[in-house]
Amino acid sequence: MDELLQNPCRLFESRHFCDKYDIAKSSLSEDIRLINEILKDNGSGRIESIQGVGGGIRYIPGISAGRIRDLQAEMIEALSDTTRMLGGKYLYTSDIMFDGHICAEIARIFAQRFHSLGADYVVTVETKGMGIASHTAYMLGLPLVVIRREARYSEGSTVSINYFSGTDEHIQKMSIAKRAVRPGSKAIVIDDFMRGGGSLKGIQDILGEFDVETVGIGVALESRLPEKKKVSNYTSVLIIDEIDEDNKVISIRANEELYTN
Amino acid sequence: MDELLQNPCRLFESRHFCDKYDIAKSSLSEDIRLINEILKDNGSGRIESIQGVGGGIRYIPGISAGRIRDLQAEMIEALSDTTRMLGGKYLYTSDIMFDGHICAEIARIFAQRFHSLGADYVVTVETKGMGIASHTAYMLGLPLVVIRREARYSEGSTVSINYFSGTDEHIQKMSIAKRAVRPGSKAIVIDDFMRGGGSLKGIQDILGEFDVETVGIGVALESRLPEKKKVSNYTSVLIIDEIDEDNKVISIRANEELYTN
Repeated sequence: MDELLQNPCRLFESRHFCDKYDIAKSSLSEDIRLINEILKDNGSGRIESIQGVGGGIRYIPGISAGRIRDLQAEMIEALSDTTRMLGGKYLYTSDIMFDGHICAEIARIFAQRFHSLGADYVVTVETKGMGIASHTAYMLGLPLVVIRREARYSEGSTVSINYFSGTDEHIQKMSIAKRAVRPGSKAIVIDDFMRGGGSLKGIQDILGEFDVETVGIGVALESRLPEKKKVSNYTSVLIIDEIDEDNKVISIRANEELYTN
Repeated sequence: MDELLQNPCRLFESRHFCDKYDIAKSSLSEDIRLINEILKDNGSGRIESIQGVGGGIRYIPGISAGRIRDLQAEMIEALSDTTRMLGGKYLYTSDIMFDGHICAEIARIFAQRFHSLGADYVVTVETKGMGIASHTAYMLGLPLVVIRREARYSEGSTVSINYFSGTDEHIQKMSIAKRAVRPGSKAIVIDDFMRGGGSLKGIQDILGEFDVETVGIGVALESRLPEKKKVSNYTSVLIIDEIDEDNKVISIRANEELYTN
């Protein structure tokens, strides 16, 4: 059943496993019960059985409240290191955003929240959110679409937009391959960081050009300020309250809504 | 034992699982034997037991020859679609390079080949190899370092080099954060595509500036021509023999060394 766990959110016909391992349907049910126990012990999600024609079994990844708390504590400890301060309220975060364990655990949070939204794609903009987005796409069993900063020849025909980035305080550009998305589809948008939400609004807008609806937004880090964001209905893992360069204090807290909701 | 499989290449003390699930060391051995059988059935690697002080157990990810062949066939079929031809011998490959299942399977190939090389990092250059690199880093339990095309403020102090890209036939730049790597360490370098190897040579050179040795190179696609590459000792998944635009033929084959060596 290793194959089932290695292909999250993918529906397999029960017959597939019965044939492959030459077992009866009744012992498959017993195997599923056992795997569900193991998954529950580790807080890793569950096997879902769908009855009837077109049914089968699939692995829905998850993450327990305890594991979310451990992840948040690990990230807060790493991010609170004041040598990360770069001036201008910037923090060096690349090592954290590309840490395999952190990416995989955050991907579980987003997969747990977004798996039932009927999305067709996971979308991010290069570069720093790509580790998390790539693992989230894998956990959701969905294609990953990467919006580029500059149109590249290897992307074929592209559509570009300009948008205002509050973080960088200037106009930025983003560009998406025409063949990357299908009009009328739905997307989950993932990024590493959100301050005012300008970049996420830009992603929503460029997807809107293809009639692609954004049905969920997940970010690893959210800045408390400005309070008014350009997008709503997003999920963050951590909230940065303040970066006080004079007193060398980085105030970061866990988003507790992740386990109370 | 789900935790063990979810943290590839990470060494756990046996006590960790005995304490967590309140089991005796003898039944842990029996559990490991059972998991090894399941992993073997699916060709997914093995649990390694290291005896003595500082020992423990860890999951070494792998992939069977059969699964490599299936993956290669899947990729060849997708890549042979002539609507991917962009002119100038370019192919549109972004959807394949960011496909979660393909990234995870390629990551297993590289993890299987490179896990014993004592590497400290997985390194790639933005953007198209990042899906594969991110999964490879996860499978090897190593940090991922992403070299940027342009130095970004959020990277802190950086070192940059210029290099000649045969693919684009002009000088390109790459830039790495000073705090991203530790001098004297070892790296596995991953990229999506290699023609002459200029970009990979550039990565080797910029890592060399930090006294970081490249101990392994993995690419998804290799162009047969030019025969003389700027780097040696690399592993590819597929080899592109020819892109014939006049006759609309894309000739791609599996790298058979992956299962014969």
